Amino acid sequence: MNRKYDIEEILEAGMNVVREKGYHHTGINDILKASGIPKGSFYNFFRSKEEFGLRLLEYYSETMLSHMHRYLDNHSRSPLQRLENFYRFVIGVNADEDCRQGCLLNNMSSEVGGNSEPIARQAHQQFSRWMETLSACILEGQEEGEIRKDYPAQELAEFMHTSFFGALTRSKMMRDIGPLNLTFQMAFDFVRA
Amino acid sequence: MNRKYDIEEILEAGMNVVREKGYHHTGINDILKASGIPKGSFYNFFRSKEEFGLRLLEYYSETMLSHMHRYLDNHSRSPLQRLENFYRFVIGVNADEDCRQGCLLNNMSSEVGGNSEPIARQAHQQFSRWMETLSACILEGQEEGEIRKDYPAQELAEFMHTSFFGALTRSKMMRDIGPLNLTFQMAFDFVRA
Repeated sequence: MNRKYDIEEILEAGMNVVREKGYHHTGINDILKASGIPKGSFYNFFRSKEEFGLRLLEYYSETMLSHMHRYLDNHSRSPLQRLENFYRFVIGVNADEDCRQGCLLNNMSSEVGGNSEPIARQAHQQFSRWMETLSACILEGQEEGEIRKDYPAQELAEFMHTSFFGALTRSKMMRDIGPLNLTFQMAFDFVRA
Repeated sequence: MNRKYDIEEILEAGMNVVREKGYHHTGINDILKASGIPKGSFYNFFRSKEEFGLRLLEYYSETMLSHMHRYLDNHSRSPLQRLENFYRFVIGVNADEDCRQGCLLNNMSSEVGGNSEPIARQAHQQFSRWMETLSACILEGQEEGEIRKDYPAQELAEFMHTSFFGALTRSKMMRDIGPLNLTFQMAFDFVRA
């Protein structure tokens, strides 16, 4: 019951349930069912559902960061190509899921961010880590002349990624990747030098 | 109890509660409390919470459409100025609310759209009405040479508004209009001829 990987199993299972069902609509029983973990173990790890939500955001964020690094640290490609490949990967994941899930950080911020200060703060902190990673690659692209220089890299990263947030939500209501493809085309058209 | 305007009172009160607390976290009692309507009246109008959600999306969408028309039909301004004034209004509303509420259609799509086909379909239908209105104004701007012509008006409207969806969510996690102002600047920089 106290195996070291229990908490990761709960978070991994919880992540996909919450991405599709939403935070408040997901009961602890849904998470237990998806992870096959007994109820007692849940409360060994999380004092409350909010604490679970906070850990879930961090876990999801780290999963995304590892994907970002996988694409953005690949120096066999130019900075702009690395960014394009990362967003192509995001679109591919959503296509495989019929666009029903989207980004946990986007979903939880719009669902819970207005009502829970701790969730909003955690989402902001995790988003900021993504921005550091994305803007480092954009800065490289600016230095190599591939990406426009009239805006700071940090601002381009913010606009790029929040545009994808909106497109993920639009794709969710249509169950279609069309909006993600359109945002890909236009956002890269905007940042390209 | 059966006054003709009861349903509007419930929807008007429900709209703001759901925008801040989210759909699943809002109980019918929260809506009754905010509207001062007795419980029996709620079920006179809505067979279920989902039916309430569907009507709420339509009611919110019509509220937004009337704001859009107020700005976009003002022919004393150029098409681009009308669009800018509409989005300045959106940013102002969110600033007044400390960015805690955002757009109901964005919020409900990302929270519920993956789990409920009727909610996703309704959100898509209502969003499509917004797109017709926005793209008519963008098309005018293209004809007058203010707005770029290398993308169809409908695609520019989609990108513009979904970018704002993402910025609303980002503003919600920060409780700050900074992301909305940044998206305003960049999105208009992108569409301008």
